[in-house]
Amino acid sequence: MPGSGKSVVARGLKEFADIIISMGDIVREEAIKKGIKLSSNTLMEFAKLLRRERGSDFIAREVIKKIKEANAKVVVVDGVRSLEEVKAFKEISGRTYIVAIHSSPRTRFNRLVLRGRESDPKTWDEFVRRDISELELGLGSVIALADIMIVNEDLPLDDLMKFASTIIKKLMIRFD
Amino acid sequence: MPGSGKSVVARGLKEFADIIISMGDIVREEAIKKGIKLSSNTLMEFAKLLRRERGSDFIAREVIKKIKEANAKVVVVDGVRSLEEVKAFKEISGRTYIVAIHSSPRTRFNRLVLRGRESDPKTWDEFVRRDISELELGLGSVIALADIMIVNEDLPLDDLMKFASTIIKKLMIRFD
Repeated sequence: MPGSGKSVVARGLKEFADIIISMGDIVREEAIKKGIKLSSNTLMEFAKLLRRERGSDFIAREVIKKIKEANAKVVVVDGVRSLEEVKAFKEISGRTYIVAIHSSPRTRFNRLVLRGRESDPKTWDEFVRRDISELELGLGSVIALADIMIVNEDLPLDDLMKFASTIIKKLMIRFD
Repeated sequence: MPGSGKSVVARGLKEFADIIISMGDIVREEAIKKGIKLSSNTLMEFAKLLRRERGSDFIAREVIKKIKEANAKVVVVDGVRSLEEVKAFKEISGRTYIVAIHSSPRTRFNRLVLRGRESDPKTWDEFVRRDISELELGLGSVIALADIMIVNEDLPLDDLMKFASTIIKKLMIRFD
């Protein structure tokens, strides 16, 4: 969910991964191919349009192309939105794990207000509407079925990263 | 989700609550009224039928009746399944908080196999099908928007309860 810190954690996992792929970047690339200028405001809507027009796992299939091109063995994918996408990844690797980063809505709202990007919600009502829109593709089900749930409520960044890497190491050993 | 330990935590919160209401119990009461015998296997299907036939917030409204009858001030509701239900509770109290208990699918599966109730899934495929069915009403969105996320991966029961009560106390102070 927006403001949970998932991209921070994803980037912090680079020591474990051959490649880190942001699904948002793939959406941005598609927009450039079509000559569409996206703001962060319209990114989510364009991502939904892509999934509707080209299949619910379209962005996942683009990620898989990149993984194959890079011949990567350990991959972090940032921004999975639905169980269809998880399924696409599981088809190419039985060792696909969902890592969810959770923060309460109140904490995420406070962070987004502090971050203050032009596209970030300014009011609680706007934030709630965006959350509902984020959940439309089935992100909630992905979170509910996470193999690892990291709670990022009031951790300093260093501690969050240490905690995340410890948990990931445990996951790698446990599922080996 | 089944096997996460949510009902254990709900019962453990009795020191904070005037009343603990299980939404599953309300479904069972409705079945008795209709003279239907439910197994745990058919409980979920009957709950879905009730929500389809009598409105997505029907069970929530029954819960609210009980809260009003008991004139309860602090209430724990176990088994919320959708944001429509959360909305119904928020309409009667602005101080409605979602507490989610998360365990990984693998941990929940192991617990359910160990528990071994007749109605519990026996195979991984059956477990996965049930999970997907549980998520159909929108439970994932409720979990994604939890005010408190408790991770119950490998905590002994005592520690889980201590942890849950500490977090709930913090929540009560924080949101006061």
